[in-house]
Amino acid sequence: MADNRAIGIFDSGVGGLTVTREIIRLLPQENVVYFGDVGRTPYGGRSREIITHFTRQDITFLMEQNVKFIICACNTASAVALEEISQDYSTPMTGVIKPGAKAAVEITKNGNIGVIGTLATINSNAYAKQIHNIDPKLKVYSLACPLFVPMVEEGYTDKEATFLIARDYLHTMHDVEIDTLVLGCTHYSLLKNVISDAMGDKIQLVESGVEISKSVYQYLADNNMMNTQTLQKPGPTGERKFFVSDVPDKFTNLASRFLGTEIENATRIDISEY
Amino acid sequence: MADNRAIGIFDSGVGGLTVTREIIRLLPQENVVYFGDVGRTPYGGRSREIITHFTRQDITFLMEQNVKFIICACNTASAVALEEISQDYSTPMTGVIKPGAKAAVEITKNGNIGVIGTLATINSNAYAKQIHNIDPKLKVYSLACPLFVPMVEEGYTDKEATFLIARDYLHTMHDVEIDTLVLGCTHYSLLKNVISDAMGDKIQLVESGVEISKSVYQYLADNNMMNTQTLQKPGPTGERKFFVSDVPDKFTNLASRFLGTEIENATRIDISEY
Repeated sequence: MADNRAIGIFDSGVGGLTVTREIIRLLPQENVVYFGDVGRTPYGGRSREIITHFTRQDITFLMEQNVKFIICACNTASAVALEEISQDYSTPMTGVIKPGAKAAVEITKNGNIGVIGTLATINSNAYAKQIHNIDPKLKVYSLACPLFVPMVEEGYTDKEATFLIARDYLHTMHDVEIDTLVLGCTHYSLLKNVISDAMGDKIQLVESGVEISKSVYQYLADNNMMNTQTLQKPGPTGERKFFVSDVPDKFTNLASRFLGTEIENATRIDISEY
Repeated sequence: MADNRAIGIFDSGVGGLTVTREIIRLLPQENVVYFGDVGRTPYGGRSREIITHFTRQDITFLMEQNVKFIICACNTASAVALEEISQDYSTPMTGVIKPGAKAAVEITKNGNIGVIGTLATINSNAYAKQIHNIDPKLKVYSLACPLFVPMVEEGYTDKEATFLIARDYLHTMHDVEIDTLVLGCTHYSLLKNVISDAMGDKIQLVESGVEISKSVYQYLADNNMMNTQTLQKPGPTGERKFFVSDVPDKFTNLASRFLGTEIENATRIDISEY
C-alpha cells in the first residue's frame, strides 16, 4: 500500500525551503524533490499572466520527476495561478493559501485577521477570499510588504533598519485591532521576531509552512499514500533532491537559514524548456 | 547628413530611465526607443550566463526597431555581458562602465576610488578593470549594496531605515579613505542624499547616467550621426517610445521618479521570442 514516489515542492526561489523544513519534520520518511526558480525570482511583483506561465512550467518539471503530490510553496503562485492550473492535472496539488486561511479562522477570537505578503499575493485578495469562504463575517485586512523578501535574502533579519521598516509597514494593522496575522509569504517566517516586535506579543502569527505540512500529512494518510517502505528505519530516511533554474551557489548559500540544514548540492535545469 | 533613426536604450527595468533623462536633456532632438525588461528584473543577482542570454535578447529587440546606436543602461549587463555581445553587431553600442570609470579617474585626487553596485556588477570587477586600463596605479574598492534597488523601487529614498542601511553598507569605504565614489547602478542616483549622508560632503559621487550621455553626444557628433532634421524646432522634439516585458502599470507608475516626467503609455512585448 506504500507510495514511495516523492513529494514535489516548488517555489519562486529559496523561500519554499521553510515549507520543506516543516514537511521533513512531519514526514521524515518521505522522498522530496524541490524546485526553486531562482533564475526568475521574485514572482511577487510580476503580472498574473507571467506568474501563471512560470507556475505551469514549474509544475511540468515536477511532473516529469514522477511525484505523487505537488506543493506550491510560493504564496504568489498559490494566490494567482494554482487554482486555474491544477484543474489540468490529476496529480493532487495544494498551495499555501487554504491551509493558512483555515488556521487563521480557527485562531481568531475577535474576528479581525491581518494578512501580509508580496504585492501580487495581496492584490489577488486570495487569503480574504478563502477566509470568507469559511466565514463571511470575518474581517480581513491585507497589506503588501515588498521590502521583506530582499531584507531576508540579505540577512537583514535582526537589524535596526528592519525593525523600523516593519513598524512602518505594520502600524495600520494596530489601528484595525487584528488579533491574528497571516505571514502570507514563506520568507516572512524568518522575520517572526521583527514582526512580533512591531505587532506586540498578543497577536498570533500564522505560518503557512507549518499549516500546509499538516494538511499534506492528513491528505497522504487519508489516501494511503504515505511512503511506508522506509518507515522501518529510524530518523529522517527520505531522499531529498534539489533543482534550481540558475547557478546554484546563492541558493545553497542561503539554504541553511531557510531549511535549517545544509544542502550539499542542487542541480541546475533550464526551466524555459518546460 | 542627418541620421534620424532613434537611439535605443535598454535596462533590466526602470533604472535606465535615469540614463534616458540625461540623454533627453543633452540630446533633446533625438528619437529614443527604450526597452525595460521588467518581466525579468532584477538582473543583479543572476549568473553571467543568464544575464548574457537576457542581454542578447534585449539588443535583438532594439535592433529590430532600426536604431542607430544602442545604450546598455544596465550596469549589470554592461559589466557582465556587453563586451562579448557587442562584437557580433556592427551597430555601435556602449555600456555605462567605461564612461563612469573614465570620470572617476579624472576626478580622484588621492587615487582611492570606491565603486558600489549590484552583486553581479561588483563580482564582475568591471569598473576596477576599466579604471586600471586607464591608470594601473589607482586603488579601487568595490562593494555590493543589494538592498538599494528594492528600497528605491519601494520609494524608501529618504527614510531613516535607508540612512541606517547606507551607513551600514558604506562604513568600510571610510576606512579606506576614498575621495570618489562611483554609483555603479542607475537606481542609486535616487539615493544621492542618503549616500552623501553616509559618506560626507567631501566625497565626489560619479553618476553613470550623466557620464554616458556625454560620451554618446560626443560619438554622434564625431560621426555625423546627430538627428539634425528636428533641430529647427525649439525644445525637446524627439519622439520617445517605451517598451516593457510585463504589464506596464508598475513601470509607468515608477517612471516619473526616474525620468522626471510622466510616461503616458508603454507597450508590452514578449522578450522570450527574441
